[in-house]
Amino acid sequence: MVRLELALTLSYEIRDPRGADFVFNIHAAQTPQQRVRDERLALSQPLVPEIQADAATATRLMRLHAAPGPLEVRYTATVDIDHHVAEPDTLAEVPVRLLPLDVVPYIYPSRYCQSDRLLKLANDEFGPLWQGYSRVLAIQHWVQKQVTFASNTSNASTSAVDTLIERVGVCRDFTHLMIALCRALSMPARIATGTDYGASPALGPPDFHAYVEVYLGQRWYLFDASGTGIPMGFMRFGTGRDAADVAFATIFGDVVAMAPVVAVRALEGAGLETPRHRREALSTADGSGSARAADASPAGPAALPLPGGHLTTQFPD
Amino acid sequence: MVRLELALTLSYEIRDPRGADFVFNIHAAQTPQQRVRDERLALSQPLVPEIQADAATATRLMRLHAAPGPLEVRYTATVDIDHHVAEPDTLAEVPVRLLPLDVVPYIYPSRYCQSDRLLKLANDEFGPLWQGYSRVLAIQHWVQKQVTFASNTSNASTSAVDTLIERVGVCRDFTHLMIALCRALSMPARIATGTDYGASPALGPPDFHAYVEVYLGQRWYLFDASGTGIPMGFMRFGTGRDAADVAFATIFGDVVAMAPVVAVRALEGAGLETPRHRREALSTADGSGSARAADASPAGPAALPLPGGHLTTQFPD
Amino acid sequence: MVRLELALTLSYEIRDPRGADFVFNIHAAQTPQQRVRDERLALSQPLVPEIQADAATATRLMRLHAAPGPLEVRYTATVDIDHHVAEPDTLAEVPVRLLPLDVVPYIYPSRYCQSDRLLKLANDEFGPLWQGYSRVLAIQHWVQKQVTFASNTSNASTSAVDTLIERVGVCRDFTHLMIALCRALSMPARIATGTDYGASPALGPPDFHAYVEVYLGQRWYLFDASGTGIPMGFMRFGTGRDAADVAFATIFGDVVAMAPVVAVRALEGAGLETPRHRREALSTADGSGSARAADASPAGPAALPLPGGHLTTQFPD
Amino acid sequence: MVRLELALTLSYEIRDPRGADFVFNIHAAQTPQQRVRDERLALSQPLVPEIQADAATATRLMRLHAAPGPLEVRYTATVDIDHHVAEPDTLAEVPVRLLPLDVVPYIYPSRYCQSDRLLKLANDEFGPLWQGYSRVLAIQHWVQKQVTFASNTSNASTSAVDTLIERVGVCRDFTHLMIALCRALSMPARIATGTDYGASPALGPPDFHAYVEVYLGQRWYLFDASGTGIPMGFMRFGTGRDAADVAFATIFGDVVAMAPVVAVRALEGAGLETPRHRREALSTADGSGSARAADASPAGPAALPLPGGHLTTQFPD
Repeated sequence: MVRLELALTLSYEIRDPRGADFVFNIHAAQTPQQRVRDERLALSQPLVPEIQADAATATRLMRLHAAPGPLEVRYTATVDIDHHVAEPDTLAEVPVRLLPLDVVPYIYPSRYCQSDRLLKLANDEFGPLWQGYSRVLAIQHWVQKQVTFASNTSNASTSAVDTLIERVGVCRDFTHLMIALCRALSMPARIATGTDYGASPALGPPDFHAYVEVYLGQRWYLFDASGTGIPMGFMRFGTGRDAADVAFATIFGDVVAMAPVVAVRALEGAGLETPRHRREALSTADGSGSARAADASPAGPAALPLPGGHLTTQFPD
Repeated sequence: MVRLELALTLSYEIRDPRGADFVFNIHAAQTPQQRVRDERLALSQPLVPEIQADAATATRLMRLHAAPGPLEVRYTATVDIDHHVAEPDTLAEVPVRLLPLDVVPYIYPSRYCQSDRLLKLANDEFGPLWQGYSRVLAIQHWVQKQVTFASNTSNASTSAVDTLIERVGVCRDFTHLMIALCRALSMPARIATGTDYGASPALGPPDFHAYVEVYLGQRWYLFDASGTGIPMGFMRFGTGRDAADVAFATIFGDVVAMAPVVAVRALEGAGLETPRHRREALSTADGSGSARAADASPAGPAALPLPGGHLTTQFPD
Repeated sequence: MVRLELALTLSYEIRDPRGADFVFNIHAAQTPQQRVRDERLALSQPLVPEIQADAATATRLMRLHAAPGPLEVRYTATVDIDHHVAEPDTLAEVPVRLLPLDVVPYIYPSRYCQSDRLLKLANDEFGPLWQGYSRVLAIQHWVQKQVTFASNTSNASTSAVDTLIERVGVCRDFTHLMIALCRALSMPARIATGTDYGASPALGPPDFHAYVEVYLGQRWYLFDASGTGIPMGFMRFGTGRDAADVAFATIFGDVVAMAPVVAVRALEGAGLETPRHRREALSTADGSGSARAADASPAGPAALPLPGGHLTTQFPD
Repeated sequence: MVRLELALTLSYEIRDPRGADFVFNIHAAQTPQQRVRDERLALSQPLVPEIQADAATATRLMRLHAAPGPLEVRYTATVDIDHHVAEPDTLAEVPVRLLPLDVVPYIYPSRYCQSDRLLKLANDEFGPLWQGYSRVLAIQHWVQKQVTFASNTSNASTSAVDTLIERVGVCRDFTHLMIALCRALSMPARIATGTDYGASPALGPPDFHAYVEVYLGQRWYLFDASGTGIPMGFMRFGTGRDAADVAFATIFGDVVAMAPVVAVRALEGAGLETPRHRREALSTADGSGSARAADASPAGPAALPLPGGHLTTQFPD
């Protein structure tokens, strides 16, 4: 088990005289694998934020309306993460007809992951491989070989297709490209965001992080698309189809945002592990993170090779 | 109340010797406003499909694995639609901080609705308008003025941004552009698909249809972005963020698809209405179409003008 | 006649130990309308640059290979501009079949001006207008109404289509959009670059400028797409299909570029005019700026309305 | 020497009552290496077309205004092609500072060849290779490995970037991608169009063709990007930056175009060769195809390795 201590400060200046609306996703998700031991939120304005958890993903959104002037949001938490650990060789892809219903949307293209345009590329590069965990690893390695990590090389409209062309990006861009390639092979894949761990100081101060979860066997497994961190030390805030769903802050109104300050450390002690690179597959989420889990179909591994390279969609005109 | 009788036939030739997987969304959604009186499914292969309804949206997905050779899917249903009817003037936009949690994702950009790129355009064109139903109507009219309906002018990768440039498209394209503009103003908007009603025979035989639902007051209201049909006669199959979520058929494997055959008629009789164009706002879905509805925040109309034209999103790098 | 005095300084630090190649376009073009009275070039390294003028456009390119270390390029010139002045009402569009051969390429789409995607938009908005100078003015006004000038809102891959969507940009972006719209109506249009005159100090210090030339009657006429300057005071360096052709500096090698320093002033004296906004059409270039001019077809005004809204291109597959 | 006999028929129906304007590029270019022995043009309407040759490229454009009704254009020619043949190992790339002025534009990005977005990819893949003919071959092989030839997989707005993503296309798409990659390495590259030779009958009847010319040493050398034909048998019509410049027909007005009919055969006889695949480099054009050639700088092979991977462009804002 890993125990992480987080301190996070966000600072804003609200210039709109009517104030501004904020939607934050900066709370640690609470799941069977990720337990929040204690947490504390401090706001510099006398506000009562509304905080709600999404039943399906355990993502917590905090919404508030701030008055003009400065706003500081400070969140601290101590979180225990007890990963589900699996042998990579046992994790097979799941045919679409056997996927739990709430997993199905993660095979569809999204704003930043245009998997529909990458069908041929994905099948050319990865089609013949064994359909399971090792194929996802092959995709991850391919992405890391094609793309170079460099700060300030992409912007809010950069998508997987752009990254494939320009071959440079930050963790979000690696994540989008890897997700798009997985979906192009009919593998459910989603973005996870939270805090980084183990990144080289050369990449800057501790920060938020974006990485990939792929659905294999009956769970979502972690992959660090950019390869810059140590997945065992990632604390999860949110998951979504792509970055469009998991901004850590969405702000409505005329507001100046300062750079966030993030600090995470792994605590030591009896029964506590220090995050390290691992050969095994790690997961913090089963297929349905909620009360709906009981309704989900059992999804056995694929008995037969899945049909590859032919995906047809029929839409209304 | 409207009573519709639907007969739908889809025909395929499966050429892959391993067979093919299908995900269909061709069942009428079952909601408090849309009740399925009777329905019947016939498959030309001896298959037991899996049919599941999504709790949040009432969309029913049917999944099956078909053997090589021909497959015919025939679905017939009689459906009663009892619209929630509202006075347009009473329907205000809802500030993001008051939206039910499961409505929030519909303000984010998606594969075909890149609302993040249209913030300035939407605010320039519609920013000063009264924030409610009539602003959505203004968007609908603007889209219909800019874009010309023409068959076979777009393809599976055409998005809202393409339609805005090329100014031609089919109902799906009108729908995507209208959704993108609504979201650019922080209004939750989604695609609905099902069957058309009342379209001019000049546009071809009866067909599937795609249209828009916008969240106002505490419900999702219907808008026919392309203006080709009569919303009161639309039967809903599915809803989603955009077409990526609501293909009526997604096929994995080497399959030839024939053109679908769709027939819908409105039954007449005591207490039954014939679909007609209406001035009032129509809805078939409240904010949460499910058991989760009870958890949803009451979303009152906006007391103050919403901050306009300033949307900031902060992502992990 | 206008007499302009220019002083221009470009500063670089060449970090590549092998040195770096530069292609500059910072000399005033020499044309019958724009005469260079005197000019001077000073380089901080002992180099003999190669300077050549393109016969067709009078654009002068200076190429050199600089050694590692600092490089300063200083160019000063005094230039007389004697505009060809025409009555707007006399300037008609020229049918493609009558265009001089070297003007034809300027009706084709280019990197940043995807006129091929704007045929319907251009015909919807401007198709019914009288085909001549006033139609170009209508395009210019439309662009200025749609797009807002704002520094640092676009980048090196921003194209006309992006500007149409995002509705914000700098002079280069206004120029690209206006060119694309003209070409979509089969009007030859090109970018001109040089120095600005008369821009509001609020837009920053004096700078390079990009504007539009449209071929009407038998000449290229000036239009300031962004409306930020006074065309009568523009000094032309280069022309091309779009910004891809007219970078003022293209650098091969590892080089840090400092911000350019530009100073222009209009001299006063007998027979000299101060640049001012004018109702008349201004031109500094005929259809063929070179010895080849004699071969060009006389291009009279269109006797008949040109066919509108139907452009077909047939390509090899 | 190769002697080719061409017969070409284009058929149209002009529906616009005002008639329609056409710009054709269907005449064999006349160059020192490609001599037209005899040629004949027949038009089914009594028209006197205007035919002009571009001095720089030898491309001949034919322009005419056709009356409503049918139009048939029939062009037959016998053409001798005497290729300049060079040893691949002797052909080095030319530093930009030594390129003839009229070759410089071919290193810039264009509508369908967005080389500016491929700098990193091109340098990653081809940066370390010897800078000459063999590097261009490496690019050609890479493109053929990535992209699959398939008819009807692209359209008039498909660009190099799209082909890189979707990995499928026709000869035009292969050509655009190869050109974009060459330019991203500062190698002048252009499209050539004309007639095909030696393509597999499986790819359809004889047709127009698009291929690549790259400037090496002091000449433009032929590369068949799609690898579907035998370059020694290609007859050249036009060259340009990309397909935007070399449509074989551009039509203004409401016109229905029928499929072109193309027939080419290689004549046999004393001193005549049958086109065959060759190891040597072939060229039909020197750096300046015109009277301007005498002004061009002699362009020796690069004495030093060229700076790689750093291209900076400075534009006016």
